[in-house]
Amino acid sequence: MCGIFGIANQSDASQMTYLGLYALQHRGQESTGMSSSDGDQVYTHKSMGYVADVFSEDVIAKLKGINAIGHTRYSTAGDSNEGNAQPIVVKCTYGTVALVHNGNLINAVSLREGLEQQGAIFQSTSDSEVILHLLARSEGDSLLDALGETLAQVQGAFSLLLLTADSLIGVRDPNGFRPLNLGTVNGSYVLASETCAFDLIGATYLREVEPGEIVLIRGSELKSVKALMAPRLSKCIFEHVYFSRPDSIVFGRPVQTSRDLMGRILAQESPVDADLVVPIPDSGVSAAIGYSQQSGIPFAFGLIRNHYVGRTFIEPKIKIRHFGVKVKLNPVKDLLAGKRVVLIDDSIVRGTTSRKIVKMVRAAGAAEVHMRISCPPTLSPCFYGIDTPTKKELIASSHTVEEICKYVEADSLGYLSLPGLIRAVGGKSSEFCTACYTGQYPIDFVDAMPDAKAEDRQLDLWEASLKE
Amino acid sequence: MCGIFGIANQSDASQMTYLGLYALQHRGQESTGMSSSDGDQVYTHKSMGYVADVFSEDVIAKLKGINAIGHTRYSTAGDSNEGNAQPIVVKCTYGTVALVHNGNLINAVSLREGLEQQGAIFQSTSDSEVILHLLARSEGDSLLDALGETLAQVQGAFSLLLLTADSLIGVRDPNGFRPLNLGTVNGSYVLASETCAFDLIGATYLREVEPGEIVLIRGSELKSVKALMAPRLSKCIFEHVYFSRPDSIVFGRPVQTSRDLMGRILAQESPVDADLVVPIPDSGVSAAIGYSQQSGIPFAFGLIRNHYVGRTFIEPKIKIRHFGVKVKLNPVKDLLAGKRVVLIDDSIVRGTTSRKIVKMVRAAGAAEVHMRISCPPTLSPCFYGIDTPTKKELIASSHTVEEICKYVEADSLGYLSLPGLIRAVGGKSSEFCTACYTGQYPIDFVDAMPDAKAEDRQLDLWEASLKE
Amino acid sequence: MCGIFGIANQSDASQMTYLGLYALQHRGQESTGMSSSDGDQVYTHKSMGYVADVFSEDVIAKLKGINAIGHTRYSTAGDSNEGNAQPIVVKCTYGTVALVHNGNLINAVSLREGLEQQGAIFQSTSDSEVILHLLARSEGDSLLDALGETLAQVQGAFSLLLLTADSLIGVRDPNGFRPLNLGTVNGSYVLASETCAFDLIGATYLREVEPGEIVLIRGSELKSVKALMAPRLSKCIFEHVYFSRPDSIVFGRPVQTSRDLMGRILAQESPVDADLVVPIPDSGVSAAIGYSQQSGIPFAFGLIRNHYVGRTFIEPKIKIRHFGVKVKLNPVKDLLAGKRVVLIDDSIVRGTTSRKIVKMVRAAGAAEVHMRISCPPTLSPCFYGIDTPTKKELIASSHTVEEICKYVEADSLGYLSLPGLIRAVGGKSSEFCTACYTGQYPIDFVDAMPDAKAEDRQLDLWEASLKE
Amino acid sequence: MCGIFGIANQSDASQMTYLGLYALQHRGQESTGMSSSDGDQVYTHKSMGYVADVFSEDVIAKLKGINAIGHTRYSTAGDSNEGNAQPIVVKCTYGTVALVHNGNLINAVSLREGLEQQGAIFQSTSDSEVILHLLARSEGDSLLDALGETLAQVQGAFSLLLLTADSLIGVRDPNGFRPLNLGTVNGSYVLASETCAFDLIGATYLREVEPGEIVLIRGSELKSVKALMAPRLSKCIFEHVYFSRPDSIVFGRPVQTSRDLMGRILAQESPVDADLVVPIPDSGVSAAIGYSQQSGIPFAFGLIRNHYVGRTFIEPKIKIRHFGVKVKLNPVKDLLAGKRVVLIDDSIVRGTTSRKIVKMVRAAGAAEVHMRISCPPTLSPCFYGIDTPTKKELIASSHTVEEICKYVEADSLGYLSLPGLIRAVGGKSSEFCTACYTGQYPIDFVDAMPDAKAEDRQLDLWEASLKE
Repeated sequence: MCGIFGIANQSDASQMTYLGLYALQHRGQESTGMSSSDGDQVYTHKSMGYVADVFSEDVIAKLKGINAIGHTRYSTAGDSNEGNAQPIVVKCTYGTVALVHNGNLINAVSLREGLEQQGAIFQSTSDSEVILHLLARSEGDSLLDALGETLAQVQGAFSLLLLTADSLIGVRDPNGFRPLNLGTVNGSYVLASETCAFDLIGATYLREVEPGEIVLIRGSELKSVKALMAPRLSKCIFEHVYFSRPDSIVFGRPVQTSRDLMGRILAQESPVDADLVVPIPDSGVSAAIGYSQQSGIPFAFGLIRNHYVGRTFIEPKIKIRHFGVKVKLNPVKDLLAGKRVVLIDDSIVRGTTSRKIVKMVRAAGAAEVHMRISCPPTLSPCFYGIDTPTKKELIASSHTVEEICKYVEADSLGYLSLPGLIRAVGGKSSEFCTACYTGQYPIDFVDAMPDAKAEDRQLDLWEASLKE
Repeated sequence: MCGIFGIANQSDASQMTYLGLYALQHRGQESTGMSSSDGDQVYTHKSMGYVADVFSEDVIAKLKGINAIGHTRYSTAGDSNEGNAQPIVVKCTYGTVALVHNGNLINAVSLREGLEQQGAIFQSTSDSEVILHLLARSEGDSLLDALGETLAQVQGAFSLLLLTADSLIGVRDPNGFRPLNLGTVNGSYVLASETCAFDLIGATYLREVEPGEIVLIRGSELKSVKALMAPRLSKCIFEHVYFSRPDSIVFGRPVQTSRDLMGRILAQESPVDADLVVPIPDSGVSAAIGYSQQSGIPFAFGLIRNHYVGRTFIEPKIKIRHFGVKVKLNPVKDLLAGKRVVLIDDSIVRGTTSRKIVKMVRAAGAAEVHMRISCPPTLSPCFYGIDTPTKKELIASSHTVEEICKYVEADSLGYLSLPGLIRAVGGKSSEFCTACYTGQYPIDFVDAMPDAKAEDRQLDLWEASLKE
Repeated sequence: MCGIFGIANQSDASQMTYLGLYALQHRGQESTGMSSSDGDQVYTHKSMGYVADVFSEDVIAKLKGINAIGHTRYSTAGDSNEGNAQPIVVKCTYGTVALVHNGNLINAVSLREGLEQQGAIFQSTSDSEVILHLLARSEGDSLLDALGETLAQVQGAFSLLLLTADSLIGVRDPNGFRPLNLGTVNGSYVLASETCAFDLIGATYLREVEPGEIVLIRGSELKSVKALMAPRLSKCIFEHVYFSRPDSIVFGRPVQTSRDLMGRILAQESPVDADLVVPIPDSGVSAAIGYSQQSGIPFAFGLIRNHYVGRTFIEPKIKIRHFGVKVKLNPVKDLLAGKRVVLIDDSIVRGTTSRKIVKMVRAAGAAEVHMRISCPPTLSPCFYGIDTPTKKELIASSHTVEEICKYVEADSLGYLSLPGLIRAVGGKSSEFCTACYTGQYPIDFVDAMPDAKAEDRQLDLWEASLKE
Repeated sequence: MCGIFGIANQSDASQMTYLGLYALQHRGQESTGMSSSDGDQVYTHKSMGYVADVFSEDVIAKLKGINAIGHTRYSTAGDSNEGNAQPIVVKCTYGTVALVHNGNLINAVSLREGLEQQGAIFQSTSDSEVILHLLARSEGDSLLDALGETLAQVQGAFSLLLLTADSLIGVRDPNGFRPLNLGTVNGSYVLASETCAFDLIGATYLREVEPGEIVLIRGSELKSVKALMAPRLSKCIFEHVYFSRPDSIVFGRPVQTSRDLMGRILAQESPVDADLVVPIPDSGVSAAIGYSQQSGIPFAFGLIRNHYVGRTFIEPKIKIRHFGVKVKLNPVKDLLAGKRVVLIDDSIVRGTTSRKIVKMVRAAGAAEVHMRISCPPTLSPCFYGIDTPTKKELIASSHTVEEICKYVEADSLGYLSLPGLIRAVGGKSSEFCTACYTGQYPIDFVDAMPDAKAEDRQLDLWEASLKE
């Protein structure tokens, strides 16, 4: 996953983009970058690390101009390294063009092979670089024409922002996999993955960029082209389940509302006689409050999250029980002792972490531990931009709910149903991509499916990210 | 405030201390340090910064030996700089001695003047260095005797750990201002400010180090001396209100239990007809849940905290409404719109931040905003180790509750009563220091009160820390 | 200027390359980088900074494999930034290819424009990237064929090394502008800009790579192709005057021998009645010793160079006479007082630094100051890889020797004649490029001449580099 | 060894001190530091590293005020670490006092033991800290009285600068071991180890601070007290042989003059029939020029020094002949081939490096290699501030000149005689400490001699430093 932000025709463009990226930090902590332009030149800075560390006052001062785009990256396709940080900036026949990309192309490998045979040279392993090669080779007279020609060739999930010396372009793929929102502040247009970025800079939310729409912003003018069509919409339902911030509006709906309803419907579908509703923080909190209020069972922070968890944590050489989980979560024994606890989380991936948490809660004195998950069982990996493990690694792909319950050693286990989830996000099932819960992928595969080895490597990252 | 941790006779002493400090990170983020000893030498590393950044695997490997002490510092007395990071390590007639200190001496200036007249030289501005000078000059035959002689001369709040080549010593002042707990793991003794440090390393909580007690640990032996007496106990009640982690046991009582009760009693003492109970995260969360459960008014996270807030944040040049607050907290408009909201926090210091939050919540659409504070009005500064602003700056020192309510622009304002607070922490009022709420200081002043200028400088830090 | 180094089929390839680059550090201090390959993959690390700082033991350990190439960069074409550090590494139809380049193409701009029109995208401003685009687009069946086809299109100065997963390729342009040498160590072939790199690793010098030659090294096999022809040779005479290390063999001749002769011939051509021969260190030392020995006038270090001069030096706010020069050079007053001094340097560029040094030597007590320069007056800028200022800035382009003498305030001024210089380097004038002294450029210009603005910016760097 | 610099009553005091330290960088590269004062407060910054790296513009701006002292450290007594960087700054009954020290006390251990028994606490292992303890405990009414009382107790080598809020004090031990010079610039007094520091800032050399003299500078006033007496002078002759810069005046005499004479007298005392005089750079250069001019044998740089040698150099895993020497020095084969070479250096310590150089020169083709050393054989370690190895390690302590010649594999070996050396430095033998050549120590030992183990550790540093 990634977060993207852009603004045009605003005297503090780089400052605003810094704030926007800061609000989107949860969408990617690996690397971040920004390009700005002043009508004449494009300025870029990008690096591994957090927004607040990468951009100093000096750096922001050098990102001159009235237009800017930025990116926070959580690696999906392409290796995790500095070379894959975005924006990608190239010089080509359309001048200097900077690109940021949220999503994942499913025909990048095929396109790349074709381009290499035609003499293209690649400097990164990122699928996003393919888009710029196609753009540079297209025969459109204008950048907008060229972009239309380019996007007709790529398939998959892509919310894009492009920056040139004098304009800002926003694109959303025709399936609408990833969000992209349009706002306004001080007479300028602004684009962002989530509306929480608008809130921080005092911008007003106008609308979503529509699936298949290209918006070209130059100065105070916005031109919209409905360039791309797809047989169906496929909005990523997982944005509402886990990825987006609860204070954001995503796909036109407040995320908090969806999560609260997930908890409430879960309580109706999967009730339990218990004393306490305890979220696995932070991912399970919103649903747990909904569950508590629907069921009348008191809500409590029975697991305390350590806010200082970072990447550099050193594992102890000695054996400490539950260490991997305990370094992030500590049970409040006096709360849990003797209680029948409903533990709420937003997913079970491999089951190993859930199993450790259940054991830890029980060791802290809980009389019973009932797990409730605020979405259906995760059966299938995502190929549209979410880092999921291989099918083989997903416990629900090969085990029944009963078997999972036994594995995680819970007294009972309940998942939200798919209809329940659809109801919670307030939509029609035909508008969402629910492939991770159903295995029904809205676009056919072009490239071979990623090899299992690469996916295995992703697994720990994913589990970790869900719990972080 | 500071966090301290020590362990003796444990093969992974520095690793364990690293974990202990990591669990105590919330007690101080300015600097951290560790000393270890192997029966022969003392090894030290300290630096400005977070535990996870300061201690790399290499650094920990160099901190050899089976005994270790560590410190996380939040500057109170002494300037904020590298020179004041602890442990302070000196070579003297008792060999090499390392010291960490949580608390604040109230006769440090007087003692220091006397020592300088006798030819002592000081290398820091920390009050803790005074203790080591007195120790080096005492005439006790053993370090323990010398320590008794030393501590008889110092007044104020001090939980101390001392490390020598072969032993670990823990001390708690006779008033018992600051916590210090004793635990055990793998046959070793361990000492820590809060029990959450025990939980992470899998240690078992044994008991508090008693007020006035010195514990000397050498190998697997612990020797206890009840060396110091005070006319009364003065446990810092603010540890339960705000400072300690909710999953810790402090002064023998689970903090979470106290905070939940603060919310419940507050709901009884200061009820309000409303639709939602919203905490100011993270400080108001526990009390808000208690308030909600007692009152039956639903609990909701109507303000979302940004978890990536750091020190280096760059202020925007352009004017953004509520920016200072918004960069940390974002209101969830769809939750708040049209609602009568009870906002729960753990204190109002100057009132300026509370005022901004109330305005922001109202701007997000709340119909009414009622503030409830989970302790009495803060009237007086602390001189025993908590960074509070001067009396003049504390809004409650010169304004009635009605005036404060008007200033923060709330529809109503209620504080927990002192008897209510005492009931919530489960103690007797005679055992606690409540000077910040009453102005009745348990120890008379020896040094002149800190000058107003220095205190003003502390103000922003304090307000910031409460909300961070 | 730049230094390049490569080695194939050697178990410590990256270690050896590190040493080679270290020996070539004087050819470029701005950035450095290395790529290695193990038959399967190419590994790369590059950064701004010195060889000894950029490559840690960890970094070298990650540069796996038996083949490696490296680069030390002194910016000539392309901006001075991280993005222009070499090796440039791309993925194309010939697999992964890494390139390092010493020299400067004179038709890069034209080629680039053509490539962009064909849809190529550029990620740097370096002329070297053009070579890789041409290579990727060529229709050769093998990399060697493709390289021949590519090199037929580029004009200018280029000594190149290319690295693939399993081979090392060395190329020298048909004019032979820049040096490239072939050596052997432990049964492996090694390529380097100067033989001092061979000395450090214990390699034996075999021969020059010939102008126009391509050598392909795979395992222990070397295949040579004489691929490119030019109407004449144009070896850069300035390599012998200033750039190369005195202990290197360059163009088949020991540099030290040339420099000594420059001094001796200068003494014959431009004698003076004086007491002391004083070099401007370090550039004038070799010629000064030759001058002294030919003339019989004693040699002395009358100017002491500060060896700790770095980039970060802070200018004093107060006015100090001759500061800019004095921070690098300090006169030994007791040596100079009352003496008639012959000051030897290797060039006068703008004249401003020479003027300051003459004044400083006179202020230190010298009775007379005679300047002697070990090459002819510098009339014209270089377009083949040496950073020279614009023609306008070169004092000799618009002033006679008498006028320059007056400007620098010397008592007399003498330059080595062009025939004298040719004699000193032991060659025929037809083999060397002497454009900087004659304005006769061996290759016609294709691109427009660099704009004056860019050149002015280079000026200080150049002057500084000569004196550093 | 160390370099010290101080200035009083000068608006750019910290800037000037920065420049002064920069000029004294050769006297110590391990750490550096500076304290400044503005009549009210003392400001300090110190760190491991070079002057140009440690002091940024920001740091210098924070070192406010009109008085400043600084230090460059080459560890002698005390461990090599940040804690031993100077200035040492303490707060005591005389206010804040900062101290820098060049030299080594020989009764520091005894004094320290006494002080610890009286209750003193030490924060470093540096002998310089002892001076401040004595000062703080002295009963003088004024700082000057206290200083006199203090200095009467310490023995050994000490050139000191002290800085208080409003004054600068310079001290030189009564034996005059280490240099200290007085100069003036812009109406301010300035003190420095060597006059090259005066040259850079445009100061005029006035005179030496006399052995046993204390100078107190406050504003534009200088008060001199001849406080300390010693039975004899003991100026360190090694300052002229090796340590000081050739452009400095030390002990009232230009170093360059001494070194030139060392070479000339050596040529008279120890002539040889040869073709080339080659210095081991940089230490042997001045003497080699003298030797060449006296003998008429041509001088040549037959060994080229790599100017980029730093601390971080990574040793190759593979075996390279002469690597340890070659990384610093490269022979110019074409110069040396077939020649009878006189190799000039300033000392042979253990002999191992000399042996490697002789072998390398011979391997480069020299027909004969004759070593000439510009001082007598080094028999005994220094206890007054120069880092020498133990007696056991000094090859000349147990071997005759013939044996050393055989060991280093030279064709002949000659040392300058002691009378020759005394003549070269222009003094009387009674004024100099020549203990390293004679074993006759001018002050009796008080502390036990440093243990052999510590000295062995120093050995490599020493050999390295001589050749660096």
